[in-house]
Amino acid sequence: MLYLIGLGISDEKDLSLRGFEILKAVDKIYAEFYTSSFSATVDDIEKLLDRKITILSREDIEENLDETILREAYKKNIALLTPGDPMIATTHSALILSARKSGILTRIIHSSSIYSSIAETGLQIYKFGKTTTIPFPEKGYLPTSPYDVLKTNLDCEMHTLLLLDIRMTIDEATDILLKMEKDKREGIIKEDILCIGVARLGSKDSVIKYGRLKDIHSYDFGKPPHALIIPGKLHFMEEEFLDTFIL
Amino acid sequence: MLYLIGLGISDEKDLSLRGFEILKAVDKIYAEFYTSSFSATVDDIEKLLDRKITILSREDIEENLDETILREAYKKNIALLTPGDPMIATTHSALILSARKSGILTRIIHSSSIYSSIAETGLQIYKFGKTTTIPFPEKGYLPTSPYDVLKTNLDCEMHTLLLLDIRMTIDEATDILLKMEKDKREGIIKEDILCIGVARLGSKDSVIKYGRLKDIHSYDFGKPPHALIIPGKLHFMEEEFLDTFIL
Repeated sequence: MLYLIGLGISDEKDLSLRGFEILKAVDKIYAEFYTSSFSATVDDIEKLLDRKITILSREDIEENLDETILREAYKKNIALLTPGDPMIATTHSALILSARKSGILTRIIHSSSIYSSIAETGLQIYKFGKTTTIPFPEKGYLPTSPYDVLKTNLDCEMHTLLLLDIRMTIDEATDILLKMEKDKREGIIKEDILCIGVARLGSKDSVIKYGRLKDIHSYDFGKPPHALIIPGKLHFMEEEFLDTFIL
Repeated sequence: MLYLIGLGISDEKDLSLRGFEILKAVDKIYAEFYTSSFSATVDDIEKLLDRKITILSREDIEENLDETILREAYKKNIALLTPGDPMIATTHSALILSARKSGILTRIIHSSSIYSSIAETGLQIYKFGKTTTIPFPEKGYLPTSPYDVLKTNLDCEMHTLLLLDIRMTIDEATDILLKMEKDKREGIIKEDILCIGVARLGSKDSVIKYGRLKDIHSYDFGKPPHALIIPGKLHFMEEEFLDTFIL
């Protein structure tokens, strides 16, 4: 049996009681931390569970599956711990599908995630459109798909959650967005558009700030994980809530 | 201090370790169960925490706030337990805003929610557009806003999560959608469109089924909570995953 268990949004205390119980009982625990940021260290989680955890790399999960957890999950109860809700990363869908094809029983244990936690900004969750991720430009090439997603969402009066590369900060992300505008020139990203910067959501030192892009850019949000939201049409209740975060 | 604590998607075991610790330490625990379905009973939660819980009604939270938790949260540590992630319901945004205006410290403890758990269907979470809720028709009046949301999402190739009224089943929801089509006649809802029905997501007896609307309508999903998804443009990986749920 293969359990895919979400660690939750911020640290090891975001694990659910169900996840904790299962982790105490399985034969072996694996974890991966490359699909998403996570504040706790492996030591913290091992201490909490009083168990040893084996870390898997991207290669282990995406290429060497048969040699790692799938072979073991045939005969034993194996858990794979992942940051956030486990099904957010498409990699984990692929893993579950491979396991089922191999006749391995699977169970998913959900946890808190950025996808629902962003409602802490006061924005109504049901009004979010597609989510997009801002990547670092590679070898001078900058994909502009986040720009297209944002444009579609704004046209439909939807909010947009912009996830950042796992190592990226808000000031880098806003620079990249402005570069996309220079390429596309459709007038979507301007220095004075209103946006929301969030850092370390779900943790005790989380930061949420609302203001113009240039001010969000200059604000020191501290260490990642960071995310950006560009709101669509705002309801007065949303505006009232956002005003409590104004820069 | 007012803690807003999410119970998670299915039952009391979806509570986070952080939520559990706080609940053991606060002066008083309230809960509300009218904004969303929840499988556990108050008894289950009281037993888990070994503490007494006071249930609040919609009226208590939306009208008599000053006489219930806000007055107490001034001097004591008060927790309000809610199903799912606490910020999903707009009622809770309003509550947090009122508390902050009264100078009461607040903290939100996130948990698992339908908004990220639906990725268990194999649909990529970042491709969902706006979410909508199907209401029961009242006094012969049937609001068609879910139809409009669905149309916009489909036009933009986004998936649509259709939440159902807390007491509604999938067969009732599909009937209501077909009635909306009769009103609007834009050719969106047909008996043969592909959709996904989900029941009791996150629980051990959860059901996910993929098929034509008329077949999803006839399938017995068991007891609520139920939800429907009408997918937009599918990636082949999503199709492959959905095929494991085919009716």
